[in-house]
Amino acid sequence: MEKLNVTPWEVSGELNDNAYSKLVERFGVDLINDNLLSRIKKIANGKLHPLLSRNVFFAHRELNLVLDDYENGKPFYLYTGRGPSGKMHIGHLLPFTFTLWLQKTFNVDLLIQLTDDEKFLVGSREKSEIEKFTNDNILDIISLGFDPKKTHIIADYKSAKTLYYYATDVAKHITVSTIKAVFGVNDSDNIGKLFFPSMQITPAFLLSALRGKNMRCLIPYAIDQDPYFRVARDVLPKLGYYKPSAIISKFLPSLQGNSAKMSSSKEESAIFLEDSKEQVRKKLMKYAFSGGRDTLEEQRKYGANPDIDFAFLEYSFLEEDQGKVDKVYQEYKSGKILSGEMKEIAAEKISSFLESLKTKKEKMKDKVEEYMFNPEKIKLSN
Amino acid sequence: MEKLNVTPWEVSGELNDNAYSKLVERFGVDLINDNLLSRIKKIANGKLHPLLSRNVFFAHRELNLVLDDYENGKPFYLYTGRGPSGKMHIGHLLPFTFTLWLQKTFNVDLLIQLTDDEKFLVGSREKSEIEKFTNDNILDIISLGFDPKKTHIIADYKSAKTLYYYATDVAKHITVSTIKAVFGVNDSDNIGKLFFPSMQITPAFLLSALRGKNMRCLIPYAIDQDPYFRVARDVLPKLGYYKPSAIISKFLPSLQGNSAKMSSSKEESAIFLEDSKEQVRKKLMKYAFSGGRDTLEEQRKYGANPDIDFAFLEYSFLEEDQGKVDKVYQEYKSGKILSGEMKEIAAEKISSFLESLKTKKEKMKDKVEEYMFNPEKIKLSN
Repeated sequence: MEKLNVTPWEVSGELNDNAYSKLVERFGVDLINDNLLSRIKKIANGKLHPLLSRNVFFAHRELNLVLDDYENGKPFYLYTGRGPSGKMHIGHLLPFTFTLWLQKTFNVDLLIQLTDDEKFLVGSREKSEIEKFTNDNILDIISLGFDPKKTHIIADYKSAKTLYYYATDVAKHITVSTIKAVFGVNDSDNIGKLFFPSMQITPAFLLSALRGKNMRCLIPYAIDQDPYFRVARDVLPKLGYYKPSAIISKFLPSLQGNSAKMSSSKEESAIFLEDSKEQVRKKLMKYAFSGGRDTLEEQRKYGANPDIDFAFLEYSFLEEDQGKVDKVYQEYKSGKILSGEMKEIAAEKISSFLESLKTKKEKMKDKVEEYMFNPEKIKLSN
Repeated sequence: MEKLNVTPWEVSGELNDNAYSKLVERFGVDLINDNLLSRIKKIANGKLHPLLSRNVFFAHRELNLVLDDYENGKPFYLYTGRGPSGKMHIGHLLPFTFTLWLQKTFNVDLLIQLTDDEKFLVGSREKSEIEKFTNDNILDIISLGFDPKKTHIIADYKSAKTLYYYATDVAKHITVSTIKAVFGVNDSDNIGKLFFPSMQITPAFLLSALRGKNMRCLIPYAIDQDPYFRVARDVLPKLGYYKPSAIISKFLPSLQGNSAKMSSSKEESAIFLEDSKEQVRKKLMKYAFSGGRDTLEEQRKYGANPDIDFAFLEYSFLEEDQGKVDKVYQEYKSGKILSGEMKEIAAEKISSFLESLKTKKEKMKDKVEEYMFNPEKIKLSN
């Protein structure tokens, strides 16, 4: 079996429950327990986001302290991000639906970082190409409906004046040895890659720095990003800020199965946000990893395993009516719904989500500036 | 004898002619020969700046190619800088008088970089303190009379948006190994210090990048800064730019002798730009390293050695009338002028220079913005 290897730049090995248990132990994070879930559920008026209720966001760091602060009327803020290395597919966007849900539930500020500099320093793409993806990704993200008054999008190159200023505070407290140990880089790597973690760590205290008051920062991220925030938790107290808290997800299921993150390098490897209804249907039918049985007869007799079925999972992440999801789950599991039918249900849900997103994206084109990071706006809204 | 050690962050060992020969060989630079000097002299209508005629700027890299370009009507530009770690003393300012002379002689654009980020990453000063020095140093520099239309002052933090964008191009082509080998840093150093060379190398092609045309860049610097530009000469061709050319100085004489650069850490170790006439006189009388004899009798009989005499050297760098300098040199060397008299002559020259600078500095306070780096201004003046 392929060795489990999870770094911000490479994910390999089979990502089953056992693998996640290993990562939890290796990274030193905590599982989200029922107590935490019910505290969040209470704040959210009894309703959890599907990625939380379905255990995709499954681990955390000091999420309890964020909830304490919230319950005591103390402000906190959210920070998440994305490396703009290509067009976004549905697996990229789903975590943002969760962040949006968090923003709405807690009514808090949110920083979203697009790490164009990282994608240039680590990959082989031209800056101009990365910039196109950055701008397009930003449109996709804001189309979800974030609050422009409380959402601040950092594109590292565009926001570098402020970001670099604070990133040197971080850099000063991180040795080359630390980066080598935590990120597995070495002397043949370029010095930009070595410095870059300072840029990704900075938003975890940037709002506090700009407002001149210490606020907790809660960061939703997939577990491969944990190294950045492990280092952040060492550095931030040295700068006088709280250690950042985290709410950590597994990788979202891939169209072709669970062995890796959905890739954006091949057209057929994922459902892209631009895909038409017909393309979505076709990709599901042709490629989607199924939890169903091999034959119609077996499926009717034994039922499917929805928990590993791409079509069911995507459907369950997008359908807000938990009652409907439960019904489909039972019927698919019992054999009443067939694999092809499950794919039709999912295709319908996914493509109506994508259609609505495309309409919103068109309208967002002249509103981007409202969302872009602006230190003055952040200070003023204090 | 103390081992010769010259890096951007440390200079130790005795800096005699032998030491400079060693550095020339070690760094692989060329001495400025008579042919080059006469080419420059011709362009400058027969007059050389004292720091050039007195062999303080003594070495170069491809200065001949810059002169070729100039003679062929091709544009080039100048780039120099300073680490704003304190108030400026006269030894800091003199190289800028030389750069000013170059700007006037060739009528070219000039980038001046204030490396506030480096001073934060490497030293122990607070950012706020460094910022005060940065602002004050900028005023001192522009008071010399640079052309605001062609002078662009980069303060790394203030200019970071553009600078960081291009610095990542440099960083991508520099490995950790290279920085370790060239700068002598190691794994216990902070990652900001490792990344910083990208920021100091970037201005060597920044004007070309912003204007979208390849221009040679000539960089006047003291020899301890050579490592940056050695690396720059490897990287820039990979980005499609000329290797930067250099005109390289020895360290300016120190008030208390030639063994190290003038330090800005102790008040009595240098003549600061704010010093009053009385302070200048007192420092020269009390501390200035003298090339004179021990007794009046010996001085009258054998004369002084002006070439190691702090007072004479400073006088010679500031007095534009070469005839006067030659006369003082002969009379001091022959014993006609005594050591105390030499100091009086120098005190007069230095303090009148400083007085005039103070007046100009006051007037410059509301003109700083005209000099600050602005990418749009650079593009427009293409």
